[in-house]
Amino acid sequence: MQEFEFIHRVTDMLPSQAEGLLCGIGDDCAVFAGNGGRDWLISTDGFTEGVHFQAAWASPSDIGRRCLEAAVSDIAAMGGRPRYVMVSISIPNTMSESDAMAYMQGISASAADYQMIIIGGDTTTSKQGLHLAITVIGDVRHGASLYRRGARVGDVVYVTGVLGGSMAGLNVLETKRTGYQEEVNRFLRPTARVASGAWLSDTGCVTSMIDVSDGLIQDLGHVAKASGVGLVVESGSIPCWQTEKGAVNIETACASGEEYELAFTVDGLRDSAFQRLLPAALGQLGHPITRIGQVVAGSGVIVRKPDGGVLSLDKSGYAHCIGKSA
Amino acid sequence: MQEFEFIHRVTDMLPSQAEGLLCGIGDDCAVFAGNGGRDWLISTDGFTEGVHFQAAWASPSDIGRRCLEAAVSDIAAMGGRPRYVMVSISIPNTMSESDAMAYMQGISASAADYQMIIIGGDTTTSKQGLHLAITVIGDVRHGASLYRRGARVGDVVYVTGVLGGSMAGLNVLETKRTGYQEEVNRFLRPTARVASGAWLSDTGCVTSMIDVSDGLIQDLGHVAKASGVGLVVESGSIPCWQTEKGAVNIETACASGEEYELAFTVDGLRDSAFQRLLPAALGQLGHPITRIGQVVAGSGVIVRKPDGGVLSLDKSGYAHCIGKSA
Repeated sequence: MQEFEFIHRVTDMLPSQAEGLLCGIGDDCAVFAGNGGRDWLISTDGFTEGVHFQAAWASPSDIGRRCLEAAVSDIAAMGGRPRYVMVSISIPNTMSESDAMAYMQGISASAADYQMIIIGGDTTTSKQGLHLAITVIGDVRHGASLYRRGARVGDVVYVTGVLGGSMAGLNVLETKRTGYQEEVNRFLRPTARVASGAWLSDTGCVTSMIDVSDGLIQDLGHVAKASGVGLVVESGSIPCWQTEKGAVNIETACASGEEYELAFTVDGLRDSAFQRLLPAALGQLGHPITRIGQVVAGSGVIVRKPDGGVLSLDKSGYAHCIGKSA
Repeated sequence: MQEFEFIHRVTDMLPSQAEGLLCGIGDDCAVFAGNGGRDWLISTDGFTEGVHFQAAWASPSDIGRRCLEAAVSDIAAMGGRPRYVMVSISIPNTMSESDAMAYMQGISASAADYQMIIIGGDTTTSKQGLHLAITVIGDVRHGASLYRRGARVGDVVYVTGVLGGSMAGLNVLETKRTGYQEEVNRFLRPTARVASGAWLSDTGCVTSMIDVSDGLIQDLGHVAKASGVGLVVESGSIPCWQTEKGAVNIETACASGEEYELAFTVDGLRDSAFQRLLPAALGQLGHPITRIGQVVAGSGVIVRKPDGGVLSLDKSGYAHCIGKSA
């Protein structure tokens, strides 16, 4: 069973609506009505040694930092500001005290970059492998959260940054090649797009948003499904990461997970206004923002080649496989 | 390094105060000022196969249920009402789909008993063993949270329920004996004391509270330390679990973890009023509430024998050992 099927079945088990809950399961964060004109955002991410990271590739501090950034990215994807963090860490009894501390130091250093406060957690031993679960809490101006479900026919599709570097870096580590240090850093030391997410929310032009954690096409697929629309992405517009030997191929840019860039849609009627805001913002945000497609009637995501044909992708992104079939 | 030393070192890494945050690290839950006269409570607990549970002893559904109750107990320990839950589950790829679903069904069934709503989470694969991290969110009347830090000299110490059944049940499972089904059920199917915690908060007489998850004496030690006081517990007053062959011994009652009873202190000047409220409540709550000691000047927890001597305990409770010493 595939991860999303598992989540779907679990979601069906229970009611999902309650007073004050603006969004439950199904987006990057759950959203609650707060006070003082702010809403609360909350999200949990789990990280498992051998699945999400290999201790042989990275220092404990880098792994801790990377997990925190991945969790914070869920707040960024709603347009929020990260505020608090809770860490559940299960530490193998074969690990040294200094390594155990280094994981938490990486998490703490990254949290401090965002002026986040660690407000609790749980520390236990593990029989096998390190496991981390990071819960992040953020806030956002009341009603300003950007959801996956907001895309409408006629909207324009955008993405922040350039894509494919993370998968290229992972490939370098897996094949134990030398060089490509920028790609390796892109994989090992990603940064959540918090300032960009908040700015995009502030423009008032953005109708939906998601972070690119499972690969651009798969994540846009979540937007399409939640919004009940189709998305057409122009392959020639996708910003591809430049390596020592040229750009990564389009398949890598489309499927690369853990990019932590933001994919979003802009109201078609406000797109001109949005484009007028862009030049001043780009210098401050420090990365490109690229128009890559449009929202259409229909369902799913199509990548259109310059000749008008449809690009066939072997792999649209990453999904965990849950359980053996009976 | 012992778990509490690890947590202490981690806590020192970062600031802990922020606007709207009524309590950060150091209690059963973090507490935020909410709106509409309510405060939010939040807590995360991690559960690891082979450490917190043995898949050979219990059904996946029972394990899921047990983890949810343990997490909810942190809300009960502050006097709150559990509202929402987020589940991060890492599933070994050797596990069947039906077992994977059964863990979530156990969690969902237990959450439904409290009318809690699952608002998110994360589902991933694990290379080794099942890992769960459960984040619970509850609410409580503004200012009515009961903290570990509230005990004052002259207060009276109480505990809900009877103690030692959980450790006795674990011992039966570990030694593969037959019989003692009530003790086994006590260990496998504990229930958080949500109604009792809320009632205790409502009395206005309780000054501090904690759940008995690591053993009575160790948990009372957290109250003593956080409050800057000493506690004297009368060994003859501790309510000991009755087995087929008589009561568990006092050491078992003092050290048994995962009881999920509530230990609390009552303002000495309000103790008469509290005792007048008890008879009507006990029938509804369905368990005894026992006066077991008093709060004194000093530090730590002493268990006093009927002859006035001090009971020496080999084991005060459970603490994870984090990391190999260098």
